Amino acid sequence: MLKLKNDKVFLDEKKIQKLQPKVDKIYEENIIDRKGLGNEFMDWLDYQENLDTKLIDEMKKVVNKLKDKNVKHLLVIGIGGSFLGAQAAIDFTKGKLAARDEVIFIGTDMSHSHFKQVENFLSDKEWAICVISKSGGTLEPSLAFNHFNDLLQKKHGDDANERVVAVTGNKGILNDLATSKGYKTFEIPDGIGGRFSVMTPVGLFPMIFANIDVLKVIDGANQAKKDLSSSNLSNNSAFKYAAIRYLLNKKSKISHEIFVSYDFDLDMMGEWFKQLFAESEGKDGKGIFPLSVSYSRDLHSLGQIIQEGPKTFFETILWINEEISNEDKIYPKHDDNDAYKLNYLVNTSVDEINKKAFDGVTDAHYHEGRISNLIIELEGKTESSLGYLFYWYFLAVTMSGYLLGINPFNQPGVEIYKKNMNENLKK
Amino acid sequence: MLKLKNDKVFLDEKKIQKLQPKVDKIYEENIIDRKGLGNEFMDWLDYQENLDTKLIDEMKKVVNKLKDKNVKHLLVIGIGGSFLGAQAAIDFTKGKLAARDEVIFIGTDMSHSHFKQVENFLSDKEWAICVISKSGGTLEPSLAFNHFNDLLQKKHGDDANERVVAVTGNKGILNDLATSKGYKTFEIPDGIGGRFSVMTPVGLFPMIFANIDVLKVIDGANQAKKDLSSSNLSNNSAFKYAAIRYLLNKKSKISHEIFVSYDFDLDMMGEWFKQLFAESEGKDGKGIFPLSVSYSRDLHSLGQIIQEGPKTFFETILWINEEISNEDKIYPKHDDNDAYKLNYLVNTSVDEINKKAFDGVTDAHYHEGRISNLIIELEGKTESSLGYLFYWYFLAVTMSGYLLGINPFNQPGVEIYKKNMNENLKK
Repeated sequence: MLKLKNDKVFLDEKKIQKLQPKVDKIYEENIIDRKGLGNEFMDWLDYQENLDTKLIDEMKKVVNKLKDKNVKHLLVIGIGGSFLGAQAAIDFTKGKLAARDEVIFIGTDMSHSHFKQVENFLSDKEWAICVISKSGGTLEPSLAFNHFNDLLQKKHGDDANERVVAVTGNKGILNDLATSKGYKTFEIPDGIGGRFSVMTPVGLFPMIFANIDVLKVIDGANQAKKDLSSSNLSNNSAFKYAAIRYLLNKKSKISHEIFVSYDFDLDMMGEWFKQLFAESEGKDGKGIFPLSVSYSRDLHSLGQIIQEGPKTFFETILWINEEISNEDKIYPKHDDNDAYKLNYLVNTSVDEINKKAFDGVTDAHYHEGRISNLIIELEGKTESSLGYLFYWYFLAVTMSGYLLGINPFNQPGVEIYKKNMNENLKK
Repeated sequence: MLKLKNDKVFLDEKKIQKLQPKVDKIYEENIIDRKGLGNEFMDWLDYQENLDTKLIDEMKKVVNKLKDKNVKHLLVIGIGGSFLGAQAAIDFTKGKLAARDEVIFIGTDMSHSHFKQVENFLSDKEWAICVISKSGGTLEPSLAFNHFNDLLQKKHGDDANERVVAVTGNKGILNDLATSKGYKTFEIPDGIGGRFSVMTPVGLFPMIFANIDVLKVIDGANQAKKDLSSSNLSNNSAFKYAAIRYLLNKKSKISHEIFVSYDFDLDMMGEWFKQLFAESEGKDGKGIFPLSVSYSRDLHSLGQIIQEGPKTFFETILWINEEISNEDKIYPKHDDNDAYKLNYLVNTSVDEINKKAFDGVTDAHYHEGRISNLIIELEGKTESSLGYLFYWYFLAVTMSGYLLGINPFNQPGVEIYKKNMNENLKK
């Protein structure tokens, strides 16, 4: 389902193999035996495997009830891990443009304009709220929930509470609120942090609303778990990815990783990836700073500095081998005067051209640019490949964090601005 | 209209002043006398000032003709500088969500899914094409134009040509095509490169379609030109910004700049900024690698590594002082049981809370994080402040490039992948 290719990485295969004992030890002690830092947040390891399908059925029932009320739009209120995974998953499976109105996200910031525009968009629509927060105490989603729930109340009166679903922890502000108002509630497990929560109700409920077959997503994750159940770097591509990143980072100047995609629908996947790695690794002055780009678009903005600027980064390309049917393929149209200068391409479809661009760029960046290009090749743009990819990344970042010697599951630095902000607000 | 604040930058003011002679020399020789590298691409310096309003009237006439044909959606086909500025400007003035359907962009990539989704979106709409390319030889927009123009022909037959506007150079593939088909055409001046073209027809035509008062944009740019007509670092904030960047970069580890905004509508401005700086500076192994983030959203993804990871970057915050009317302000609603724990904020509006977040984050990143925070404070989110900002950035990046000793106006590295890709395609 997934292949890692490192033949365009400036790194000796032997150096990677030398990390094997360290990887073995981390796997045994910190992943199998769960004795590492932050081990109380590792329940994502087998959450999917143990998932009772009754929970999925229950979520489907709630979605159907909303749709019976003619609800066409789900307003998901959440920040960080409480929205990135769901949006990445929906864009990935349904298409960024195609899906953008069905599930809408807010509570991600405190931009007045954002609030107003979403309010205007919803004003003539039938919509419901899914509020997602483990504690309920984070300011951005609280403000958004307070505001949009008020609008919903004004529109539907007492019936509004039937249009609110809470995904939250088993205690806290949001749990209390949900209990008192009688919202339908789904639980965020205690032992799973935000950035590892996409395959819990946090991500699953919005996906189900968007008609995504989440059982296939779960199946994909379980397949990944099976495929990656050894620490041998020749078999475990997630650990190999972690090992390569670790070694590239140790070469002093490689401080940044660029997540590259060639697919319009993968922008949010880049954002999801950024949270997963930045929050897991970026502490104690350590970590690789993650960026994301969308090619070929950003070759016409960042391409110049990537090709010829300082070499502070490596690129990791997520390439998807997607089967496009013959009827669906787009071919350049022949022009009698060859006015577009595209006649030589009339037998090469847009997706094939994109693939050739990918090959050309990878070569240019590697050979002329002397940049390491790691390639993650995923088979298919399907629900199961999506689940596989998520789980693969979870394992990769866990190994990566432990190789750095940090706790991959906490985020102490996020608290500092909140503290400052809350002090300012209380003045 | 614009203030630069550097009191949260780890850099001695005296060091900045020491650059004054160098800045003076560049200003005299390369900007006033235009004797520097790449000077043939500096016509943006006075293009706005000399702009004949007849050109604007002509563009308005063409837009009105399209709207008379009931055209509701403009499909802009362009890549890099041929779309980023227009989209940034439209999002900035009209709102990202509010404006997203009026002007749609394609030709930015070769993602099959992107083509299909735009095609589906347009299938039941009345739309026209604005194709933007200086030469007409860039593959991404050529492919998109070839495909969507074909759809337009199928829909409208011969009348389709009345629904195509070309913005192009005075010669080349697209100019030839436009002439042969009789498209209405507006000229991209020879002496202005893509990333400096937002206030030529490249950006102005899409803005006019979106009902933006472009004369005010031009006025803002002219105001900036007047305000920045001295090289004195105490008066010229654009040059001071360039000087500070230059000095921070020379401190070995500061290799990246993060463009920060706190406004949902500024994401594309970040992308525009990235092209402007990355293409202008990123050559000969030099340049600061530009990133962009949207706060507070990305504090919940990248915040951790920014606060506590390696210090390889500084932040430049574009903060907009926006006047929001009392009726328009959003206040948290009081709850009798204080269920949201927001009752202490019922007199603080969302935009005021956002401002306090900005203050709190800047303090946390500067004091605890030891990160330089440069602040660009812009007065108003208006057409004229937009034009001012664009021109301010043009001058800043020009000074910045010349301080580095490179040609700020070429982009040799962008050609390498094109060469590779074209060779692959011709095989």
